[in-house]
Amino acid sequence: MTSKIWGGRFSAGPTAIMEEINSSIDFDQRLAKQDVRGSRAHCTMLVAQGIITKDDGHAIQEGLGRIEKDIATGAFHFKRSLEDVHMNIEAKLADLIGAPAGRLHTARSRNDQVATDFRMWVRAAIDTLDEELEKLQGALIDKAEAHADTIMPGFTHLQAAQPVTFGHHLLAYVEMFGRDRGRFADARVRLNECPLGAGALAGTSFPIDRHMTAEKLGFDHPMANSMDAVSDRDFALEYLAAAAILATHLSRLAEEMVIWSSAQFGFIQFTDAFSTGSSMMPQKRNPDAAELLRGKSGRIFGNLIGLLTVMKGLPLTYSKDMQEDKEAAFAAFDTLELCLAAATGLVADMRPDPVRMRDSATAGFTTATDFADWLVRVLNIPFREAHHVTGQVVKLAESKNCELGALTLADMQSAEPRITADVFNVLTVEASAASRVSYGGTAPANVRKQVIAARARFIKSRQP
Amino acid sequence: MTSKIWGGRFSAGPTAIMEEINSSIDFDQRLAKQDVRGSRAHCTMLVAQGIITKDDGHAIQEGLGRIEKDIATGAFHFKRSLEDVHMNIEAKLADLIGAPAGRLHTARSRNDQVATDFRMWVRAAIDTLDEELEKLQGALIDKAEAHADTIMPGFTHLQAAQPVTFGHHLLAYVEMFGRDRGRFADARVRLNECPLGAGALAGTSFPIDRHMTAEKLGFDHPMANSMDAVSDRDFALEYLAAAAILATHLSRLAEEMVIWSSAQFGFIQFTDAFSTGSSMMPQKRNPDAAELLRGKSGRIFGNLIGLLTVMKGLPLTYSKDMQEDKEAAFAAFDTLELCLAAATGLVADMRPDPVRMRDSATAGFTTATDFADWLVRVLNIPFREAHHVTGQVVKLAESKNCELGALTLADMQSAEPRITADVFNVLTVEASAASRVSYGGTAPANVRKQVIAARARFIKSRQP
Amino acid sequence: MTSKIWGGRFSAGPTAIMEEINSSIDFDQRLAKQDVRGSRAHCTMLVAQGIITKDDGHAIQEGLGRIEKDIATGAFHFKRSLEDVHMNIEAKLADLIGAPAGRLHTARSRNDQVATDFRMWVRAAIDTLDEELEKLQGALIDKAEAHADTIMPGFTHLQAAQPVTFGHHLLAYVEMFGRDRGRFADARVRLNECPLGAGALAGTSFPIDRHMTAEKLGFDHPMANSMDAVSDRDFALEYLAAAAILATHLSRLAEEMVIWSSAQFGFIQFTDAFSTGSSMMPQKRNPDAAELLRGKSGRIFGNLIGLLTVMKGLPLTYSKDMQEDKEAAFAAFDTLELCLAAATGLVADMRPDPVRMRDSATAGFTTATDFADWLVRVLNIPFREAHHVTGQVVKLAESKNCELGALTLADMQSAEPRITADVFNVLTVEASAASRVSYGGTAPANVRKQVIAARARFIKSRQP
Amino acid sequence: MTSKIWGGRFSAGPTAIMEEINSSIDFDQRLAKQDVRGSRAHCTMLVAQGIITKDDGHAIQEGLGRIEKDIATGAFHFKRSLEDVHMNIEAKLADLIGAPAGRLHTARSRNDQVATDFRMWVRAAIDTLDEELEKLQGALIDKAEAHADTIMPGFTHLQAAQPVTFGHHLLAYVEMFGRDRGRFADARVRLNECPLGAGALAGTSFPIDRHMTAEKLGFDHPMANSMDAVSDRDFALEYLAAAAILATHLSRLAEEMVIWSSAQFGFIQFTDAFSTGSSMMPQKRNPDAAELLRGKSGRIFGNLIGLLTVMKGLPLTYSKDMQEDKEAAFAAFDTLELCLAAATGLVADMRPDPVRMRDSATAGFTTATDFADWLVRVLNIPFREAHHVTGQVVKLAESKNCELGALTLADMQSAEPRITADVFNVLTVEASAASRVSYGGTAPANVRKQVIAARARFIKSRQP
Repeated sequence: MTSKIWGGRFSAGPTAIMEEINSSIDFDQRLAKQDVRGSRAHCTMLVAQGIITKDDGHAIQEGLGRIEKDIATGAFHFKRSLEDVHMNIEAKLADLIGAPAGRLHTARSRNDQVATDFRMWVRAAIDTLDEELEKLQGALIDKAEAHADTIMPGFTHLQAAQPVTFGHHLLAYVEMFGRDRGRFADARVRLNECPLGAGALAGTSFPIDRHMTAEKLGFDHPMANSMDAVSDRDFALEYLAAAAILATHLSRLAEEMVIWSSAQFGFIQFTDAFSTGSSMMPQKRNPDAAELLRGKSGRIFGNLIGLLTVMKGLPLTYSKDMQEDKEAAFAAFDTLELCLAAATGLVADMRPDPVRMRDSATAGFTTATDFADWLVRVLNIPFREAHHVTGQVVKLAESKNCELGALTLADMQSAEPRITADVFNVLTVEASAASRVSYGGTAPANVRKQVIAARARFIKSRQP
Repeated sequence: MTSKIWGGRFSAGPTAIMEEINSSIDFDQRLAKQDVRGSRAHCTMLVAQGIITKDDGHAIQEGLGRIEKDIATGAFHFKRSLEDVHMNIEAKLADLIGAPAGRLHTARSRNDQVATDFRMWVRAAIDTLDEELEKLQGALIDKAEAHADTIMPGFTHLQAAQPVTFGHHLLAYVEMFGRDRGRFADARVRLNECPLGAGALAGTSFPIDRHMTAEKLGFDHPMANSMDAVSDRDFALEYLAAAAILATHLSRLAEEMVIWSSAQFGFIQFTDAFSTGSSMMPQKRNPDAAELLRGKSGRIFGNLIGLLTVMKGLPLTYSKDMQEDKEAAFAAFDTLELCLAAATGLVADMRPDPVRMRDSATAGFTTATDFADWLVRVLNIPFREAHHVTGQVVKLAESKNCELGALTLADMQSAEPRITADVFNVLTVEASAASRVSYGGTAPANVRKQVIAARARFIKSRQP
Repeated sequence: MTSKIWGGRFSAGPTAIMEEINSSIDFDQRLAKQDVRGSRAHCTMLVAQGIITKDDGHAIQEGLGRIEKDIATGAFHFKRSLEDVHMNIEAKLADLIGAPAGRLHTARSRNDQVATDFRMWVRAAIDTLDEELEKLQGALIDKAEAHADTIMPGFTHLQAAQPVTFGHHLLAYVEMFGRDRGRFADARVRLNECPLGAGALAGTSFPIDRHMTAEKLGFDHPMANSMDAVSDRDFALEYLAAAAILATHLSRLAEEMVIWSSAQFGFIQFTDAFSTGSSMMPQKRNPDAAELLRGKSGRIFGNLIGLLTVMKGLPLTYSKDMQEDKEAAFAAFDTLELCLAAATGLVADMRPDPVRMRDSATAGFTTATDFADWLVRVLNIPFREAHHVTGQVVKLAESKNCELGALTLADMQSAEPRITADVFNVLTVEASAASRVSYGGTAPANVRKQVIAARARFIKSRQP
Repeated sequence: MTSKIWGGRFSAGPTAIMEEINSSIDFDQRLAKQDVRGSRAHCTMLVAQGIITKDDGHAIQEGLGRIEKDIATGAFHFKRSLEDVHMNIEAKLADLIGAPAGRLHTARSRNDQVATDFRMWVRAAIDTLDEELEKLQGALIDKAEAHADTIMPGFTHLQAAQPVTFGHHLLAYVEMFGRDRGRFADARVRLNECPLGAGALAGTSFPIDRHMTAEKLGFDHPMANSMDAVSDRDFALEYLAAAAILATHLSRLAEEMVIWSSAQFGFIQFTDAFSTGSSMMPQKRNPDAAELLRGKSGRIFGNLIGLLTVMKGLPLTYSKDMQEDKEAAFAAFDTLELCLAAATGLVADMRPDPVRMRDSATAGFTTATDFADWLVRVLNIPFREAHHVTGQVVKLAESKNCELGALTLADMQSAEPRITADVFNVLTVEASAASRVSYGGTAPANVRKQVIAARARFIKSRQP
């Protein structure tokens, strides 16, 4: 081939291409802290097992300590020519301490090393997301408490169906984010086994103690199969899957915020802190943050589907394709950390308009179910028949262009003669909401109880 | 508009279109068993709480019992005009017992009903997949036991790296499928809370006992928020996510089977039971089943991404979009049940060729690591230096076109004078594999221990 | 292995599993018509080239003719034991005409045969979707024409920004669906080359005439490379990609319909034909069809991602994984054909409420841009400064809780003394919309022109 | 809320969060060149239409010229506080030229501005990818020409089926990449209409000339509907869909490279330029670049599914979610530009081993079809019967552990007495390949013709 084929961005030819496609240091430097921590544990174990001398071990620890500090302060300089985070740190160690550095890699390989680092990173990411989720739940619970009595329409098909309280609506999201935390917690348990000591893929003939390194690095135990240890990326997939489901919740909440803050709904407003104005139309408050929250779910789905696709075709054990795992995991974390903070801010920031909400709740015959239930409960009419009678009464109200509670008793008796004036007691939106006292129902009294229960279940920082 | 716009498949116009798009009976009839079970529990509770009479309750139970039998025998006739499984069963009950049927729907709505049915279905699907996974693990463990000593090349980048045992390789999959079972089990715990009693979305004013129905249907407890109860489909998403990760494992195993059964590898053969021949080329055995196993992962990914997309945009509570949840869940189950059975069959069926495998393992200097480790262990050379010496020796062997073990001691000493004849003891593939006795390593002795441990961890049916 | 491992659905063991996983007749019978057509063209060519005799050719054509009729009337009985549509038809032909049937498969293989059949099927699917898209555009154009003057708020961020006409809004979708048709048309051109004659993968030594078969089957030319011919599924991927983009348009339209038909917006209503009521709340009209339209996009995305995943890992040429191509293509077609019919119906059915729309358009200072533009045009103030002045005036109006047009001239002059009463002419929503006469703008006069242009561009059936 | 809720990365509270989530300047600065070009065209038109004065126009052009230079040299400093590329450039222009800068935004909005910029960017990306694809095709064609006679096994199911030539195999990819170019070209035509002048969403009342700006910016015409103009992102979706299909081709080629370069296949080797060695195992050549090529398809699929998900739920017109469009498009381009360069390098670099390939092609009775075809052609036996006779002969050869050509004539006549010695002429892999002279078949003579044809169709730079 002539050199003509190299043009454009890669006119330098194969070397430039290979460095660009092969090097991972641009992103895997995010594993630097974990890499040092893993090396320190490995070194301690090598000494304890008599595989390297105490003196060598001491020199290594000392050198790694200095590297650790440089990493923490941002003083460590990563070189692209050294390809990845492991080689960068190893080379630096050799610079610092000379010969003993060459003993650190005994009974270890980059394959088990990167698997260990990456697991620790994902574990830390999960811990951070858990904290952010707790904050978001806290903001939702606080808002729910403040609005335990605020009536709004409960929707199905975006059509008002029954009155609910705004507090109750918000607590639904507390449940969702609670399940998200459960999924991350389960993923954390499952990932928390240590690949270190699996070597390149087959284990090692050195008398290592994998239980010791596992323990030192906070893992529950070493992984049982060395080939699985270096080829498994389930932990990243499971974390991304949990992230994707969490993203659907954030997106649903955001969709509601966008709809609620439209002029037509007018249920909530955001302050300037969480909306974007226009110098020309100063009254305008675009819910940009909510829209981005909603839109960013697509990105997380993409991260998940991307890594599923990568892993799907790979024979054991390590293949270079697996290098694609990290950017997906990093991107999902950065996106979610930001989105959770934004969601927490949006929830705390939103200003409901109880009057608009209540007005909306009274329109649309939202207490028709209460009417039907009254027929069943008081007149002992079978539900399906009560359903039918209610339909007639609603039709009548519609023709009179009034709400159910504005009909006369005579109107109602035209559909069912046994109806008494008592029925009017269940036809206000307040009465309707207050009557839903079944477990998990929307009654303000329930909501107050659920607020207390939710704090107990989810908010560690509020526990005595 | 003129009626001209209706043509093609839907020339009957709106009615035909709406029936086609809106009706779910074609697929949700798979929930029939769960629907009846849910109704029976609801009825029992209504009687216990005095919401309906014992006589009505008795009649309902009797009618549902007959319907249950008809469903089990396939005698139940579902009508498309009745739209969904709930209306089909309710209508049939009314036919059978008349008026009391109209009382069954008291304090209930289709929204909490379908959520309950579908959760029970997914729960049962998970239980079946768990059983199928156990069988597959059993087949892998059996095969691993039979091949604890069978040497094959361990690959990275599809390049031979170190000798491993075939048994060890197979046990890596036992770990993967073990994690899959863990994921499904966690999903099962999380889904196992009962939506029944949430009503349309707000709860109910009837004095229902949600704990009773939850218990009767095998749920751990009722869901805490009625709006969440009817709008949540996390359980389906989490099940699909676990399914997608499982699919990557099946696909990886299948990819290996396809490669191993190529003439160029020649590691395994399938019998006629699990391959497809050709009347013209009777020796040909296409690994069709393995290829389909591999290909069907795409379908599961599609099911997952499809439902994530649906849920992502929905405000609370129920929207009709959510009707899309079932077919995805059903399809993933049917696919995986079949694929797991096929995988179990393929594993049990495959006939390894130990000679081809061993020959492949000896080529490519796969014991170079053993050589380097010997230098470290015996001569106390730092690993990175040992690494370098090994490189020189391998280069020498390559230039002589022989394996490492075929070099003379003098050859080796040309690279490092202190090398002794003892080194030859670590250069056979058998010695190499046998030396990897670190926890989780590939040594045959380890594999035998792991086989026992794996049976104890995973195979309930073999436990005393 | 003991037979114990077979349980559950596949207790019959390997045979049952293989038949279930391997057989494609349950779905590929949809290719029957194409398969016969392909065979007839192949037979004609074999005779013309002297590869088989005229008598044999005649017998084959006669037999295929009978099969064709049976398929058309549904009388053809497909047997699962014969695995796929090709073997079913070939076996039937042998039954009907005996020996000559064995000559039909000369110079052909199932690999090129199925590729040919499937291309013809996708081509026909595209043609049908194009017709359905034309109908949908027709309905949109008709509605746009009827509402060329109907004022509604134009939204950004679901916040009213400027007045537009409903007709203009609908024409935006005509553009989208027009691009969809363009994508399908391009895909059709690209797929329209014929794989027949590629044989199993290498071509053939028989003196076939691929140009003749290509032409007879309506292809533009034969494919240039036999290996590509049997391993390519780009045409299915491209069709699914076009389908996915189309699905986003349907989903956007549906999202608007759901929002517009909420009580809070109240912009449109659907009749009973395209909404689902409730016997209890007869006034309720759930936009079920629109929601399903929106939800079904997830399914199409899943079909696309599924097949991308399948194809991504495959070496040349045919692999059994590719059998997964058909169900995805069929499912996407069935979904879209239905959704397009539903969308057409929904568009034709929707009843806008011009009063609600106009009221919404007047709220929110939607003519602020017109005010600013007047300052630029008449007073020659730089746009950014005009922008600033407008902000002050809007703030004033907001503080007085009135619209811009309700301010006094003095109010306005307090922000900018040069303002004259002429400005009031641009502050009504009607004046605003009417002023947007730039090409593609929302002025009613423009909309009327665009309606004519759109009919000319898109509606063949209306052309003279 | 207390300030306690702000912690972790966003302890600065709402301001930090909003800047982080809302600002797009970190990525949309890639549109800077397009943004200036768009502004210059807009300015020229404003002057031509008399909307701004010549002097103002002159000042603006001069200022934009200086900005353009700064951008080209990297001297332009983007500020995060100015949020996006448009505001950064506009602010800079105001700094440079003062008041006239405020007139540039007349009759324009950020909505039509960004849509215009982004379209121009995607158009340029397509042009670059087209060039890279041409280079890749060039490398494939060159390699195919060099190996027009090199025999290798043609695979189905990764089982050798028939002998093909390596050149023919490579030309299959030339077809695939040719279709990719076709898809990008079609997407380019469809995207090449200009949104500029659509304003915020409704058009404008200024007498602008959209045809002039469209032409100046290289667009075919202005977009017909202003609301579509600002809310459409089809062009990004279609580009990503074409990218995803291209990624499947790169992945398939890479999968083959990985398999071919395994020791077991041994069909090709990469030089050090395109493989990664090991200092310890210097003979080892890991096909890292090919693996990354394969793995990066997942990322592109993720980009596509991400944007489909974003767009799917959005009402008209602009929503902030759409800001997610750019990073997906940028990432896909960067990935593909790199992957195409790597693929070109890999193709040019790979060193086939014709002996290994031919040996592989002769094993496995790959000329059985030739035998059957001989029976049909010479003895006039129906194909299906010939198929059967061939099966018997292959079985015989298998039992004798020899290839077909090594059987005696008597052996063959035991299956079919009419066979003559002439049959041996078709049983070598060379004869088999050479006989496939049907259009598109693998015969070396065909391959040579196809090489010439492919150059004529695809390689502009080689045209006279």
